[in-house]
Amino acid sequence: MADKPARRIVIGRRPAFERPSQPGWCHVIENRFARRAATLSTAFPAPHFPSELGPEVIPFDSGFAAPQLLPDLTAFAHAALTEHREETLQYSATQGQPELRGWLADLMNEDGCSLGPDNLLIVNGAKHGLELVCRLLLDEGDAVVVTAPTYFTAIPIFRSFGVEFVEVGQDEDGLLTEALEHALAERQAEGRPLPKLIYNVADFHNPTGATMSEQRRLRLIEIAEREGIFVVEDTPYRRVRFEGPTIASLKALDPGGIVIHLGTFSKLIAPGLRIGWVAAESELIARLIQLKSDGGSSPLMQRIIYEFGRSPAFAAHVERVQAVYRERRDRMVAAVRRRLPEAQLSVPEGGYYVWLTLPPHIDGDALAARAAQAGVNIIAGSKFFAGGEAYPANRTRPNHHVRLSYSYATPEQIDEGVERLAAIYAPLAA
Amino acid sequence: MADKPARRIVIGRRPAFERPSQPGWCHVIENRFARRAATLSTAFPAPHFPSELGPEVIPFDSGFAAPQLLPDLTAFAHAALTEHREETLQYSATQGQPELRGWLADLMNEDGCSLGPDNLLIVNGAKHGLELVCRLLLDEGDAVVVTAPTYFTAIPIFRSFGVEFVEVGQDEDGLLTEALEHALAERQAEGRPLPKLIYNVADFHNPTGATMSEQRRLRLIEIAEREGIFVVEDTPYRRVRFEGPTIASLKALDPGGIVIHLGTFSKLIAPGLRIGWVAAESELIARLIQLKSDGGSSPLMQRIIYEFGRSPAFAAHVERVQAVYRERRDRMVAAVRRRLPEAQLSVPEGGYYVWLTLPPHIDGDALAARAAQAGVNIIAGSKFFAGGEAYPANRTRPNHHVRLSYSYATPEQIDEGVERLAAIYAPLAA
Repeated sequence: MADKPARRIVIGRRPAFERPSQPGWCHVIENRFARRAATLSTAFPAPHFPSELGPEVIPFDSGFAAPQLLPDLTAFAHAALTEHREETLQYSATQGQPELRGWLADLMNEDGCSLGPDNLLIVNGAKHGLELVCRLLLDEGDAVVVTAPTYFTAIPIFRSFGVEFVEVGQDEDGLLTEALEHALAERQAEGRPLPKLIYNVADFHNPTGATMSEQRRLRLIEIAEREGIFVVEDTPYRRVRFEGPTIASLKALDPGGIVIHLGTFSKLIAPGLRIGWVAAESELIARLIQLKSDGGSSPLMQRIIYEFGRSPAFAAHVERVQAVYRERRDRMVAAVRRRLPEAQLSVPEGGYYVWLTLPPHIDGDALAARAAQAGVNIIAGSKFFAGGEAYPANRTRPNHHVRLSYSYATPEQIDEGVERLAAIYAPLAA
Repeated sequence: MADKPARRIVIGRRPAFERPSQPGWCHVIENRFARRAATLSTAFPAPHFPSELGPEVIPFDSGFAAPQLLPDLTAFAHAALTEHREETLQYSATQGQPELRGWLADLMNEDGCSLGPDNLLIVNGAKHGLELVCRLLLDEGDAVVVTAPTYFTAIPIFRSFGVEFVEVGQDEDGLLTEALEHALAERQAEGRPLPKLIYNVADFHNPTGATMSEQRRLRLIEIAEREGIFVVEDTPYRRVRFEGPTIASLKALDPGGIVIHLGTFSKLIAPGLRIGWVAAESELIARLIQLKSDGGSSPLMQRIIYEFGRSPAFAAHVERVQAVYRERRDRMVAAVRRRLPEAQLSVPEGGYYVWLTLPPHIDGDALAARAAQAGVNIIAGSKFFAGGEAYPANRTRPNHHVRLSYSYATPEQIDEGVERLAAIYAPLAA
């Protein structure tokens, strides 16, 4: 950076004093960042929004909503800005709008929980909820348990708290609780502190699509309670179920409050709402409120969601979401089976993603790189592994996988995209 | 907490296994919180919104907007949700909507800066911007400079990063730069690390109302550049000016990028929007984007603000804001001079607050407590002092002050509220 000009921002109105003799501010203060920020890139992230891509690019990397599923919120916004003008334009309670919290408690109680409005905190999306939970629980040097693979956006959030990872494997029934017990026992035997939390997406896991069995859920909570380790349950896809019986959420199975539940409206209503929630013991919510220093989540967005959520439009919307993504899931599974028969896949019962396990001689990173050149954006499996201690130690190598999303691509794009992948796959496999 | 029942959340659908023999989860995991959260209260904060108070209560504690100043945003919201539906309901760029950033750069450049859209990051209000800057700069044990007194909501944000405070005094020209130099020299002489940042509200300071002189601003930047310490300029009230010439912002006077500028629409448009911005060197913005893990700030709110901001309604709105609060400032200053002549006050040229310095025999905490009993909510001056090392050491005692806000109370309430304060004041002074 020392070769950059010392004077970065040219003063508009008034030249100030002369700059000191240092070669430039970056040079002077490079060592003035927090440890969590010292190694961050100074380059801007590349845009990767579907709307910024050419029409020829097929976005299998996107967690965006199918555009036709974006609901019409105009009437709810109008009501919010007129009938509730004072509520929606003044400061609002940090904990969130009471009626919205009450409705959310009802929704979760219909789903097997026993919560009141004081068990809920409204946040700016589930990622914000996760960050607040990290602020509640994590000091530098702490350990966290994640699945291998795990939701890739959670990895830098955890990393920014200076933690180490304990990676626990999964199968089609979700997190391997025996491997978790082994990991915890090993740490205890070595006199090392236990992890502070266990992070998991139990329903339609991102990226694997696996849903944790009830037996595993009960076992996970039992272990967590015994050891006093919080379970952070992230549930963006829980209501995006296409078939099969709903399995009780970890929160519904939680007798004593060891589960901290994260929810969001992004996958169920629209990603742009930027409103989610944390459901937990009220003592934890009270502490989280004090750590939530944003001046409250948007009261306008909260009112719009509440008015939409209690309108008849909501149930119809959820049905449409399920129907559209079920069709796309079917389309993608059929295309993969037809054109990429060597790739293993488990059919997800909900969610947005298909996770392909490739034969040993195919590298997921190479496949993703070639796919991008051919106008198909997919995400290499290696991006979903946090690194760190792995249980079981001999888990599948991270670079054997790719994740394909079917939420945003049209059925025609799904067929075309898988065709293109098959064409790339052949020379790699040769 | 051990006397609370061990089983907090009764399972709805299915009884799980028996609980272990511990007396309750709180007891088990009390030591499992992060250091920053270990001492937080488990009680819910008391609500203090004007709308929750009886009509007899006069809210001189509130930073709420005067209700008649809340703008009509219905047409902008409608356009945002129809013409820009895909933009406002899908995920959006973490850095913020490009047109909004461009418009903000223009606004700031009209105000003396030289910024481009890459110098801007959209955040969920200025407090969120401050938290992100803390994440960029602060490790546990670092020091930060704040004014004595300072914006009280910033104190717990800094505290949650485990920092120590260096308090620098102020006079009617703002932060005492000589005292700052003395503080820095003392630390250097003792071999202690310099503070990581200097936090200040240079325009219409909260709580004192003081505006920093240009000479002090230049001196502050000179010191900061020389020592390599970032200046965090918080500007919620900058455009709420009633009279007198505008003084260049710290960012406009910043030759090399040492100033990180925080802005918000809360005081200028409406508090409930929950959208603000950070203006800084693009290398800093690039790092902040990576620390902003909330999935982007609400694209709907961003579009509404942009459409309102570039409409003719915006300039008219700002004029009304200035006119209404000027009248209320005048009303409050006149009432205080008439009824509390022993209290010293400097007339603020903008902003929301009047800061009273009481005679030595009057305690601000006692006055605030009595005022609440008499139905006047004011904030004791002691709440605005962060504690820590103080420069100059013999600064005024923190509990000699109270802050009165005139933004939300009507002119009639202003007269009545000061009357009530005068009635309380007399016996305290006796």
